[in-house]
Amino acid sequence: MTADGEIDLPSLERLVGRLLEGGVDAIFALGSSGEVAFWDDARREAVLEAVTGTVAGQVPVIAGAIDMQTDRVIQHVRAAERFDLAGYVVTAPFYAITGPEEIEAHFRAVAAATERPVWAYDIPVCVHTKLSPAQPLKLGQDGVITGVKDSSGDDVSFRRLAAANRAAGSPLTLLTGHEVVVDGAYLAGADGSVPGLGNVDPAGYVRMHRAAQAGDWERVRAEQDRLARLFEIVFQPTDKVGPAGGVGAFKTALRELGVFSTNNMATPMTPIEGEAVDRIRAILADVGLLYGAGAGA
Amino acid sequence: MTADGEIDLPSLERLVGRLLEGGVDAIFALGSSGEVAFWDDARREAVLEAVTGTVAGQVPVIAGAIDMQTDRVIQHVRAAERFDLAGYVVTAPFYAITGPEEIEAHFRAVAAATERPVWAYDIPVCVHTKLSPAQPLKLGQDGVITGVKDSSGDDVSFRRLAAANRAAGSPLTLLTGHEVVVDGAYLAGADGSVPGLGNVDPAGYVRMHRAAQAGDWERVRAEQDRLARLFEIVFQPTDKVGPAGGVGAFKTALRELGVFSTNNMATPMTPIEGEAVDRIRAILADVGLLYGAGAGA
Amino acid sequence: MTADGEIDLPSLERLVGRLLEGGVDAIFALGSSGEVAFWDDARREAVLEAVTGTVAGQVPVIAGAIDMQTDRVIQHVRAAERFDLAGYVVTAPFYAITGPEEIEAHFRAVAAATERPVWAYDIPVCVHTKLSPAQPLKLGQDGVITGVKDSSGDDVSFRRLAAANRAAGSPLTLLTGHEVVVDGAYLAGADGSVPGLGNVDPAGYVRMHRAAQAGDWERVRAEQDRLARLFEIVFQPTDKVGPAGGVGAFKTALRELGVFSTNNMATPMTPIEGEAVDRIRAILADVGLLYGAGAGA
Amino acid sequence: MTADGEIDLPSLERLVGRLLEGGVDAIFALGSSGEVAFWDDARREAVLEAVTGTVAGQVPVIAGAIDMQTDRVIQHVRAAERFDLAGYVVTAPFYAITGPEEIEAHFRAVAAATERPVWAYDIPVCVHTKLSPAQPLKLGQDGVITGVKDSSGDDVSFRRLAAANRAAGSPLTLLTGHEVVVDGAYLAGADGSVPGLGNVDPAGYVRMHRAAQAGDWERVRAEQDRLARLFEIVFQPTDKVGPAGGVGAFKTALRELGVFSTNNMATPMTPIEGEAVDRIRAILADVGLLYGAGAGA
Repeated sequence: MTADGEIDLPSLERLVGRLLEGGVDAIFALGSSGEVAFWDDARREAVLEAVTGTVAGQVPVIAGAIDMQTDRVIQHVRAAERFDLAGYVVTAPFYAITGPEEIEAHFRAVAAATERPVWAYDIPVCVHTKLSPAQPLKLGQDGVITGVKDSSGDDVSFRRLAAANRAAGSPLTLLTGHEVVVDGAYLAGADGSVPGLGNVDPAGYVRMHRAAQAGDWERVRAEQDRLARLFEIVFQPTDKVGPAGGVGAFKTALRELGVFSTNNMATPMTPIEGEAVDRIRAILADVGLLYGAGAGA
Repeated sequence: MTADGEIDLPSLERLVGRLLEGGVDAIFALGSSGEVAFWDDARREAVLEAVTGTVAGQVPVIAGAIDMQTDRVIQHVRAAERFDLAGYVVTAPFYAITGPEEIEAHFRAVAAATERPVWAYDIPVCVHTKLSPAQPLKLGQDGVITGVKDSSGDDVSFRRLAAANRAAGSPLTLLTGHEVVVDGAYLAGADGSVPGLGNVDPAGYVRMHRAAQAGDWERVRAEQDRLARLFEIVFQPTDKVGPAGGVGAFKTALRELGVFSTNNMATPMTPIEGEAVDRIRAILADVGLLYGAGAGA
Repeated sequence: MTADGEIDLPSLERLVGRLLEGGVDAIFALGSSGEVAFWDDARREAVLEAVTGTVAGQVPVIAGAIDMQTDRVIQHVRAAERFDLAGYVVTAPFYAITGPEEIEAHFRAVAAATERPVWAYDIPVCVHTKLSPAQPLKLGQDGVITGVKDSSGDDVSFRRLAAANRAAGSPLTLLTGHEVVVDGAYLAGADGSVPGLGNVDPAGYVRMHRAAQAGDWERVRAEQDRLARLFEIVFQPTDKVGPAGGVGAFKTALRELGVFSTNNMATPMTPIEGEAVDRIRAILADVGLLYGAGAGA
Repeated sequence: MTADGEIDLPSLERLVGRLLEGGVDAIFALGSSGEVAFWDDARREAVLEAVTGTVAGQVPVIAGAIDMQTDRVIQHVRAAERFDLAGYVVTAPFYAITGPEEIEAHFRAVAAATERPVWAYDIPVCVHTKLSPAQPLKLGQDGVITGVKDSSGDDVSFRRLAAANRAAGSPLTLLTGHEVVVDGAYLAGADGSVPGLGNVDPAGYVRMHRAAQAGDWERVRAEQDRLARLFEIVFQPTDKVGPAGGVGAFKTALRELGVFSTNNMATPMTPIEGEAVDRIRAILADVGLLYGAGAGA
């Protein structure tokens, strides 16, 4: 964010450049770490314009189409069709409570509105509904969704989904968003990860992914342990909850790393200040991301 | 909803007409019972156009400006400024978790965007945050909000808010949305009610309100007991959750009463069918809303 | 509690005497306010010995038989059979999750173990299961339970239970434990109240009950408003949760009123100290329970 | 359980024998899978008598001392002191809500009551309180507890605890009870596992443990995938919740494997019957635990 409350596009482009340098296989734009919940339609389009422009086809870009209910999600999808995107990430409906029948109809309606692949985003902390393992699997077998981004924090459910998916011939690609237990998710059968913390250390998550593919589990674990230490940045702002703390810590780290110009947050959130910033710097130094005179001082 | 998925404006106008005939003091448009969560911007405007047009200044109309975060709420407010409205109803932010500091900033930002009064809508079942009694009171004392629509189901909190409001000189007008315990809310200090079920029997809730103002508590209780019997319609569709059950039951009742042309629901919900409709008819007959040959048959 | 961690029987007897003077129709011993969860078998028996001895048949005494699962509840019932009791109050099983089938079997097994009436205690904040209105009604119709003590905080459910109970010929006696909305519960159909705060001001709750029976709702409301002001004592200890705050406030009030010798709590809880005590005194004075030089000072 | 509701000691002894043959390093008696919540004091002692008698010092036996609050937990500890035990497993207090201050005092009081090591059992699904990573670590550094059995399902918290414990010199031994993600827990830093499913296939969990110690992660994962398939037995009884389903499935499997004489459950639970038993047999055959003519038929 710029000082006058607009999206700071140069900072966003530097972030995307850093992800590409880090070696990521794809980019997920307009996710929770992208504060998608706070953006109106125009800002969402501006983000997609900047991200797809910077990526310029080097890797696939997948876009969050996050809104309360089906019709608005489809509006976001339609507005994004003009960009070079490889698919959409869609949550269960929220605000108004829905049951399994409505959730299924929701994903089917969104998928029917686009030729592009649709990913299910399982994020009960935001939508207050947990997808059962059977539900995305059925949608995958029916060709409605292509994969799942699991940010549920329910590793038993994820393991069951991974096993059932494998038994069904792997119709789904499974990604975890679970920053500090990505190693366990790989053992369970994750095909990749989309962690918010990956914005701060994309190269670290890429190294862990390559090590998992190579079966070098000791290296997977060592990288995960380091990234878990890095994740402690989100616990430093003791006076904030939700994205004001978590995404705020990511933004603060990116500012300290010289990627972002500010650590401003979308309204009504306020940026992290004071000693929490010092502690975040110390953690960045400890895990080897921040060097030089001021690091950890 | 019409058969082709559009808002059935003639049905909506009949509903508004029935509310006016029932003697309501004001109308709340685009609330939970109005399926606001499911409407895009164009449909929200069409609803406000129809409602304010039908009301034509006979009573104040208050509009829900319900969306995930501050900026979108302000967009809804701005889009509604051209209508003859007496204020806006606004929830705490949702999807992304926010704390008390952000919730307060949210209401202040929305209120700063309009000259019209803002009401706080306390509805944790949808937004998953409960307003503490102290928070709306402070916002009321600072002139940020004019009142609270309490659909929290937390009567202890409501009583505490009512007492604190009274002690502070009643800066807030307090409305309850709690269909079957409006009588207790009046005892606790509610100034009025905005129950979803009031769409089905506006005259009943108006009678209860008049009786409460007159201190005729036996009549309040008798009317509330009758309306509680009517509320059983929401428990008849045993295979649905959330608005597909509750609002679906209201719509089905209104269809059976000849007000609505259909009981269609917004996507992805499906209408109530089968024996549940028969049971809803029987309840309508039992409480004296449905007469004649077919009633309760 | 005495200074050395034993039950302070003289204080307990003074409390019982005060309840009797206040005009209560019955006494509930070993409930949540009685810290039953913290007592072993010997202390529970000592409490019943003291309470029944002091009451000496003047009013019925009902005893909590609160434990995790069926067999232990039955042990408590058997240990209590030698006392002059009018029945037992029993919760749904807890710790290990149980469903409706097991809850029903639980109540049936307990009822089969005694000739005395059994009351269902609906207290989801402690047992993490909410009884549906249909469940106690069925148990009442089958003669398994005689009534319900509702401390669920779910007034919609209570209203539905009251209505269904009335329609079924009132097999159940319905009591509310919901301190600050007892007036609304009377309107809804409560036969009486068993509020924890009644230990602090039994005469106030008795006056409200008599007024409700007489249909004098303005007096009911005035008394409830006063008792709601008194209930604010539980929010004064800002550093405590659960019974350490709520029951702790009751005990502190009773000490300040000269009924209890100390405000000690059962292990592992600690008593309320410091400014919170001053604020509790001020509230006691404000509602007319504490007089004289030091009140509210 | 025998047909007349008593503990079936010969079956229990066969179970213990099978655990020893499976190569377990220790035995946890009176845990959730042992239905400890349902046993009175006499039955708990009978279980410890049988288990310690059968084990006869071959491996350490640790006993659950599970009850609502401190004093009762200490009673269980004292009653168990005469058995050959290597420690006690203790949860946070439950039923009455407690905060961090009380939870800490609780563990300190229990530890002060015995010379033997105390383990913290983090099981929010039963006690409805989650231990923060900092809390057990502090208790470990102070010598109050010796380790943690984590059945929280919160892998982020477990990872943070493991990292903080390592950084502090590993004062705690960390065990996971999380049946289907034990492999990830080993990567995160678990020292061992205490899964309920280990009663059904102790040799499988022992093999996984040995493989993890040897750094043979492909074998760890293969064994975990097989055990995750086995865990599907708990989802077969579709009409049961909680231990009636989960522990009921373990018991049914053990009966089908010839270890238990019945699959009876403690009151008020009922045993699994019908087609769910057939599906459990099929799963046992699929993972190689059940052979011969009838397997999976």
